[in-house]
Amino acid sequence: MNEAAALVSELPARYAADLDRVLRSVIGEHDDPIHRMARYHLGWVDEHGDPGQFNRGKGLRSTLCLLACEALSGDHRPALPAAVALDLIHNFTLSHDDVMDRDVLRRGRASVWKLWGVAQAINVGDLLCARAFTALGDLASPETIVAAHRMLADTCVAVVQGQSADIAFEGREDVSVDEYLDMISRKTAALIGASLRLGALAAGAPPTTGDGLADLGLAMGIAFQIRDDMLGAWGDPAVTGKPVGQDLRRKKKTLPVLALRQAADAPGRARLAELLAADEPADRQIQAVLELMERFGVREQVRGLADEHAARARTALGALPAPLADHPEFAALIDYFTTRRA
Amino acid sequence: MNEAAALVSELPARYAADLDRVLRSVIGEHDDPIHRMARYHLGWVDEHGDPGQFNRGKGLRSTLCLLACEALSGDHRPALPAAVALDLIHNFTLSHDDVMDRDVLRRGRASVWKLWGVAQAINVGDLLCARAFTALGDLASPETIVAAHRMLADTCVAVVQGQSADIAFEGREDVSVDEYLDMISRKTAALIGASLRLGALAAGAPPTTGDGLADLGLAMGIAFQIRDDMLGAWGDPAVTGKPVGQDLRRKKKTLPVLALRQAADAPGRARLAELLAADEPADRQIQAVLELMERFGVREQVRGLADEHAARARTALGALPAPLADHPEFAALIDYFTTRRA
Repeated sequence: MNEAAALVSELPARYAADLDRVLRSVIGEHDDPIHRMARYHLGWVDEHGDPGQFNRGKGLRSTLCLLACEALSGDHRPALPAAVALDLIHNFTLSHDDVMDRDVLRRGRASVWKLWGVAQAINVGDLLCARAFTALGDLASPETIVAAHRMLADTCVAVVQGQSADIAFEGREDVSVDEYLDMISRKTAALIGASLRLGALAAGAPPTTGDGLADLGLAMGIAFQIRDDMLGAWGDPAVTGKPVGQDLRRKKKTLPVLALRQAADAPGRARLAELLAADEPADRQIQAVLELMERFGVREQVRGLADEHAARARTALGALPAPLADHPEFAALIDYFTTRRA
Repeated sequence: MNEAAALVSELPARYAADLDRVLRSVIGEHDDPIHRMARYHLGWVDEHGDPGQFNRGKGLRSTLCLLACEALSGDHRPALPAAVALDLIHNFTLSHDDVMDRDVLRRGRASVWKLWGVAQAINVGDLLCARAFTALGDLASPETIVAAHRMLADTCVAVVQGQSADIAFEGREDVSVDEYLDMISRKTAALIGASLRLGALAAGAPPTTGDGLADLGLAMGIAFQIRDDMLGAWGDPAVTGKPVGQDLRRKKKTLPVLALRQAADAPGRARLAELLAADEPADRQIQAVLELMERFGVREQVRGLADEHAARARTALGALPAPLADHPEFAALIDYFTTRRA
């Protein structure tokens, strides 16, 4: 593990106890089935409602929010309500995404719809979405709360736009690289941008600082997703724990495939369609797709896009006021987002 | 049409132009596919995105909110942001409910999931939910907005609890009348109660007035749903436009069926199970279920429950301060909610 990855694995622990306390108070003591399912999805209990230690996700969004507030004000605590709201929004979208993508696993356990059906998984998401707005109600002043609600609602709309575009792309063969980048800027990066912006808001920083941090978060988020797509095509199985070309096997239309379709000549495009026509492409076919990508320079192109957004993030960081611009942890986070190997 | 029904059909028109203007400004000008689907669901456009006149629902919740504000302050306009939020929440739950219940029709047109799939119907609901919170941001003061956000989030949680219980009931044969009443108090009545409470909040009325109105709305909402269930079993086909025993045909576990199961002796219960065992019960079987209901006094019992909640609503109305207690339109609304024939 490199230095940046070590930091990212340590940072959430710094805030975990505070986050857990506030999150539990927002969810409340309700002991009905829908709250038990929500607690399961949050990684607090098993499917019978018994407490246990489960994977709760990396908490990247709440961590970014708290780190921004701490860097600006010297204290992370004013941003706790916003950080909890961000984790709730993220978990709300995951419950709905699992339904849409028919993903049977979430963080190593059965997804909510797999256990209790599509209807209850929609309900779990709806519950967590509502509670995200509840969480914001504990920010320091009415003015801050009003501004935070506006930001969170706008961010939800962006995430839904991205999710909706992603679904629509499944039925299209002509999605361009630019359309794809716009989609991930909404589906993934908007919430990362909002995380930093809400941290600045809670710290009482001027709106221009919030805007700068949102730019930084947006660039980081896009770089993060491109990196994810790179790992899905070219990740080292020994590090990712997933087979070579995992995304290609699952026929996901990630950036490498779209870039290949755009870069290839007509015979190359035909060959790609043929290779991915099988319901479950075999090793031989995956290998052939990867060779096509080498031939048309796709790996370099995708890496170039990742580098471009990482550079955008570093520029945005440098343009921020002093306590942020030379903040070692922010620089390390950008590093992690853009160079992680798993 | 009786006097109460006439009023209820006229009231929404009083506010329609204002509501439409605010609602459209909250949804904004976005012209992407997900916003087009949302506009379809709201009844603004057809499935190709072309504007037209479609059934947009009765707008009962927004009407109640505006009427409460107007009765208390002499002006409905301060409550417009809350009224729009309520219609958006209602429409958000409808898009998700249609997915959960596999309802192919909504207000006489194909439901969103039927046209564009389950994933996009979830997205439409999520979008409208977020925009409901956006809408509240235009209330008069930050303090009012904060209070309204708290109320709306709590109400969403209640609605989700009710929806989740309703789904869970489908897999159970032992749901009691009390459990059912608790379910509809959340799924249906909580939002009616919140509509009146938000109207009071927007009018600047003291919290006790809001509490009293919420009690009134809760009782009205329960009476409304019981009435709905009565119409589904005993409604006059000539008035409802639906076949006799519509809910029974669809094997919905509404109040009459649950009350019958609870009131019947063992042979009666066995007979009921047998009659409803067919995938699509025939006229003869529906008639036999209705006869069982007569034999065990179910119609009187259900009417008694409806009367009880209507009386609760009238008591709550009478306990409110003067401009409300003797408000002829509120009294007429209670009448409509509890006596409507379609």
